[in-house]
Amino acid sequence: MDAEEFRKAAYESIDKIVDYYKNLGENNTISSVEPGYLKALLPEQMPNEGESWDAVKADLDRAVIPGLTNWQSPNFFAFFPANSSYPAMLGEMFSTAFTGAAFSWICSPVVTEMETIVLDWLAKAIGLPESFLSRGTGGGVIQGSASEAAIVAVVAARERYIQESKVSGQEESDLRGKLVAICSDNTHSSTEKAAKIAGVHLHKVPTDPKDNYRLRGAPLRKAFQDLKAQGLVPFFVCASIGTTTICGFDAIDEVGSVCKETDSLIWLHIDAAYGGAALICEEYKDLLKGIEYADSFDMNMHKWMLVNFDCSCMFVQQRTNLTDHLTLTPSYLRNDATDSGLVIDYKDWQLPLGRRFRSLKMWMTMRMYGVEGFKNHIRRSVKQAELFNSLISSNAQFRIVTEPRLALVCFQVFSKSGEDITKTVADTLNAGKKYFVTYAVTSDGKGILRVVTGSPQTQDEHVKSLYNAILELI
Amino acid sequence: MDAEEFRKAAYESIDKIVDYYKNLGENNTISSVEPGYLKALLPEQMPNEGESWDAVKADLDRAVIPGLTNWQSPNFFAFFPANSSYPAMLGEMFSTAFTGAAFSWICSPVVTEMETIVLDWLAKAIGLPESFLSRGTGGGVIQGSASEAAIVAVVAARERYIQESKVSGQEESDLRGKLVAICSDNTHSSTEKAAKIAGVHLHKVPTDPKDNYRLRGAPLRKAFQDLKAQGLVPFFVCASIGTTTICGFDAIDEVGSVCKETDSLIWLHIDAAYGGAALICEEYKDLLKGIEYADSFDMNMHKWMLVNFDCSCMFVQQRTNLTDHLTLTPSYLRNDATDSGLVIDYKDWQLPLGRRFRSLKMWMTMRMYGVEGFKNHIRRSVKQAELFNSLISSNAQFRIVTEPRLALVCFQVFSKSGEDITKTVADTLNAGKKYFVTYAVTSDGKGILRVVTGSPQTQDEHVKSLYNAILELI
Repeated sequence: MDAEEFRKAAYESIDKIVDYYKNLGENNTISSVEPGYLKALLPEQMPNEGESWDAVKADLDRAVIPGLTNWQSPNFFAFFPANSSYPAMLGEMFSTAFTGAAFSWICSPVVTEMETIVLDWLAKAIGLPESFLSRGTGGGVIQGSASEAAIVAVVAARERYIQESKVSGQEESDLRGKLVAICSDNTHSSTEKAAKIAGVHLHKVPTDPKDNYRLRGAPLRKAFQDLKAQGLVPFFVCASIGTTTICGFDAIDEVGSVCKETDSLIWLHIDAAYGGAALICEEYKDLLKGIEYADSFDMNMHKWMLVNFDCSCMFVQQRTNLTDHLTLTPSYLRNDATDSGLVIDYKDWQLPLGRRFRSLKMWMTMRMYGVEGFKNHIRRSVKQAELFNSLISSNAQFRIVTEPRLALVCFQVFSKSGEDITKTVADTLNAGKKYFVTYAVTSDGKGILRVVTGSPQTQDEHVKSLYNAILELI
Repeated sequence: MDAEEFRKAAYESIDKIVDYYKNLGENNTISSVEPGYLKALLPEQMPNEGESWDAVKADLDRAVIPGLTNWQSPNFFAFFPANSSYPAMLGEMFSTAFTGAAFSWICSPVVTEMETIVLDWLAKAIGLPESFLSRGTGGGVIQGSASEAAIVAVVAARERYIQESKVSGQEESDLRGKLVAICSDNTHSSTEKAAKIAGVHLHKVPTDPKDNYRLRGAPLRKAFQDLKAQGLVPFFVCASIGTTTICGFDAIDEVGSVCKETDSLIWLHIDAAYGGAALICEEYKDLLKGIEYADSFDMNMHKWMLVNFDCSCMFVQQRTNLTDHLTLTPSYLRNDATDSGLVIDYKDWQLPLGRRFRSLKMWMTMRMYGVEGFKNHIRRSVKQAELFNSLISSNAQFRIVTEPRLALVCFQVFSKSGEDITKTVADTLNAGKKYFVTYAVTSDGKGILRVVTGSPQTQDEHVKSLYNAILELI
């Protein structure tokens, strides 16, 4: 494929993408294919000779698009959103064209410097304290996902704890076997996975449904005491701004204060993967209360903030807490810029060595939306969630499980005879493929239906149609 | 930005990308900017109101492009290549447009099924045994990088070892503190980082420079004995097809056989991040000798195989070795397809939860190059490395350190008076910004200059010009 063939194919691709977005509302949200569908449509081997773009394009329509679940559909109300935007797509186009494995500054200075700048922009916009900015002792880094951020935090916390404990030899080996990471029974599974990967114990502190499933100071203090009595050593706590099942807000100030009084070496990580986006609006800034206790904070631009997946923004108050424990620089990676200490090498802030130019899509999206554009987007989603909430509130067959949080509504559905039909309604609705919602179970065993607004494609009419579609099932 | 504004901006972007590729040879390869350059060019805050595409585009030229180190330049001879191709760029465009956090099958069936199919295509094309294919007990998964594949392998190996050892309680805690991963003193640093993340010891087995720096069976056996004598427990070995510094080929058959005779629970991982691409050519198939001993194998399509970063292909002989140890399925991720057991959920084969549609760029590249297209690309690079090797062989001021491997030439440079000026030459050449080469130090302390061909943009004339540029410095 030469340059002119590429130009033509790329123009066609842009046209196809524009059409795809235009038709999102008319097509199903969930793919209708059956497991194994693609095997029947594609050959068993790579072709021996290269094929034409026209052949590939035909298969894109025939084989690929029918297998998509359309996260950008205005009728996607499942999980949390994974927003897309045109500016972010332009950013990814250039990022792909400028491809390289930019693991250190010299490997493409703009990849590093742009990342530092846009993460500072974001930190300021969402109200993180000065200490999380790069001009102080902290700074931000783009991870692939909140899961990777959690692994980085747990590993750095583990190594800091062991190093500062000044144990040696067999003592260190003993200590490693006793370390325990702590989260709540509502924390996203990524913390549990991070603990598994890091090879440490995990303990889940129970939350109180009557207290909106929040992690509070008192039960955390009790957990510390109980764990220590068992000979275990707490070294890491994850608190959330927006838990997954019901978007709970943990009491960060209490949690941080209890961590600090217990052991100043305990690492506090804030998982704001979903909720972090809302912090750009003044009315949510108080969710950050207690943030000064946090060692690290992570939020996803790729959820509710218009940057295409993947783009998870992790901030730390002390960047040496990462670089002291994640740095390896063999001879083939040494260079004058790194040796000078004047530059950041983000390879030492993350798990892998290589990295994509992910800040470019973030920069383009920030430039073209601006702070006001993001605020409008967030507030519009919240209003749509409130609209949905008002619709179900008017009908006795619905029972709201938690007060609506941000753009998430959690509720149960009952038949006219009073039977809990929440799961049946969720399954039947999803089986229709037009709408996508999530059925989940709360930590105290309640089956709930989760409806999240957040797609920029979603209009009020889609929210009303969803409500009417549910009405037809009950 | 509405659909029509996007269409116009995207067309312009395609034109800019085509121009960028056309001019790659005329511009510097290494960026000339100084640390901190970008801060002076961009504002300190995100704009309050959204800006126009024209404003962003102007800054792309003014601020972004000067800060790029151009990995696609025909004069990029550093590290290993990070290839790009037009078909892969088209694939990324669609992948970005179809964005979502496709963590399980139902979240976008084609994302999973396409990945299974193209990894089977690749396994067949490079000659992996039947047992690494999805129709058997094995299969492939796309990781972000060889580093992530290494972490996945070390963690799964660690958990398998502990589980199969049937220890409990304090015994398990003791065992965790004794586990040791093994590699050679030439293995890429990603294995050391993986061991660090997994919280296990690392031991490097020395290689013999006279034996081309290969990891062999006998020193590995001795390492096993020594480590066990110290009370440590070897559970993981990494052998490489193409080490980083000198592209060494470890004796996989010897290594595998020694692992097996020592402890059948030891996990053998093959790091073919660079060398794996060459396996598509018949003349390199014997590098796989002993592959039947391997639990896992990883190669990067994003190095020398024309797929833009990131795309690292990991294969296992027993997929349950991953899924038994990396699976977590909280209620909000449960669905009928997953519960049926009929589908793959790749979230259980990797570190993060969410995933991009990376197989699409791989599929488009495979379709449009075909097996023959890849072979031509690989052989062309190898021929260019041989050309460079023949040029330096004719001059007594160059000393070849290892026989050329694949498309890598490692050598030393001497002044007319016989002084070793390798580092000075490398530094001076890179300071000129036109060419990018790597200076590295071998495990026995020799400073070498590494020249790797592999960019599809590189022509023979660029190789000759590089040689002439070096001649001017000596």
